[in-house]
Amino acid sequence: MTKLFVVGTGPGDSSLVAPKAISAITASTDLVAYGLYLKILGGVCDGKQHHDLPLGEEIGRARLALDLAAAGKTTSLISSGDIGIYAMATLVFELLDQQLQGKENHPEWLDVEIEVIPGISAMQAGAARVGAMLGHDFCTVSLSDLLTPWETIEKRIHSAGSGDFVVSFYNPVSKKRDWQLNSARDILLQYRPASTPVLIGRQLTRPDESIKITTLAELDAKDVDMFTLVSVGNSESRHIVNGSKEWVYTPRGYKKKLI
Amino acid sequence: MTKLFVVGTGPGDSSLVAPKAISAITASTDLVAYGLYLKILGGVCDGKQHHDLPLGEEIGRARLALDLAAAGKTTSLISSGDIGIYAMATLVFELLDQQLQGKENHPEWLDVEIEVIPGISAMQAGAARVGAMLGHDFCTVSLSDLLTPWETIEKRIHSAGSGDFVVSFYNPVSKKRDWQLNSARDILLQYRPASTPVLIGRQLTRPDESIKITTLAELDAKDVDMFTLVSVGNSESRHIVNGSKEWVYTPRGYKKKLI
Repeated sequence: MTKLFVVGTGPGDSSLVAPKAISAITASTDLVAYGLYLKILGGVCDGKQHHDLPLGEEIGRARLALDLAAAGKTTSLISSGDIGIYAMATLVFELLDQQLQGKENHPEWLDVEIEVIPGISAMQAGAARVGAMLGHDFCTVSLSDLLTPWETIEKRIHSAGSGDFVVSFYNPVSKKRDWQLNSARDILLQYRPASTPVLIGRQLTRPDESIKITTLAELDAKDVDMFTLVSVGNSESRHIVNGSKEWVYTPRGYKKKLI
Repeated sequence: MTKLFVVGTGPGDSSLVAPKAISAITASTDLVAYGLYLKILGGVCDGKQHHDLPLGEEIGRARLALDLAAAGKTTSLISSGDIGIYAMATLVFELLDQQLQGKENHPEWLDVEIEVIPGISAMQAGAARVGAMLGHDFCTVSLSDLLTPWETIEKRIHSAGSGDFVVSFYNPVSKKRDWQLNSARDILLQYRPASTPVLIGRQLTRPDESIKITTLAELDAKDVDMFTLVSVGNSESRHIVNGSKEWVYTPRGYKKKLI
């Protein structure tokens, strides 16, 4: 039997890595991951064969993981966050799908047993860090237009606005993409107050974490980089200040029923 | 110093509980939680004072946790899944907010140090179990109209449809609510194909887990109970079958760029 673990290791803090993820890595001889992720994981990766590929070569990484597993090496394909959310897991199944349709020539992939292990995603780490931003209906929107036309993304932000979802933006900016976040802000401003609380969370749960709570009107792409999560509250989200502590939470519902 | 941990323990499988959650419980003398959750956690809860309240008394549970912590007892308020997602965390901050506004008479709550620890939510466990359903933009919608008017929920489902988000329905049915899920299905059918893959995941990651992959047209509330997560793919989600295995994944984007 050949086995591929597809493993999410959470936002960074090693105490947020599930034991199941550690067991998968322990059981593997080969790891496919960015070097940075393995550094965070520490000792459990020692003595494993580490395979890396340049940033951007996601499909190559998924292929490599399937190839290694098909060759009989128990393999973990690893990413930070939840590997099922905007990450590598879906590429593995995209390749399997291609093979099943006869568009690839790797029948050996079909014999690989695949197990996906979820992890804590950035929006969850951010929400917990400032209180309870995801207390009610929410959505995620990736602002990367590399694979999705901007028109589709724009439409989706309008829908997030009309539905009054709490919105977490993944891939908010990159070196080559700097205007999308401000456009997204302007769209949401058509639907919810300028005072809506916004979380700008950089390097969440990592040693150099920084947290900024601002408003939708003040949100600006210049304060955001590719290591940052941006979450925008819904029209009922509240920013509260208790001495030196500040929190953001989104109430459970729209009928105030606190007794 | 008084301390309250607000802890999510994931979908059920103890190997998906973060070490940070275990540390919090270990450090606590008092636990506020349903008995069932503690059973899953096992030995780490031994010797702790366990406080339970009847199902439905969520606000009472949050009050109790704040009161215990304010009285100097290190306390963990625990729920399954991610306690920040449709769960207890937001109630703690709602109570703090009330106190800050002078609508409560518990100034001692304001001295409690609060730490929220996120957990794996049901949508993540479900997506991982069947592959990678959350590979692209998604949203969650609670179908409980106890605190949110149905008109608001309905509007939100329309937005989920127009935005072509993968949709996870939380609280899809209960003993008293049986028609909302079918209404939600009918709304989504206005926006995406009848063949859209749907996951019906019951008791995810627990010993009596059951998984059913069906289509949007076939989704029926009679197959769903309150222990079930329902996730509906977007218009590009794929259901693939490889021998005895079946998977659902949502491609990363809308431009097919597989090489």
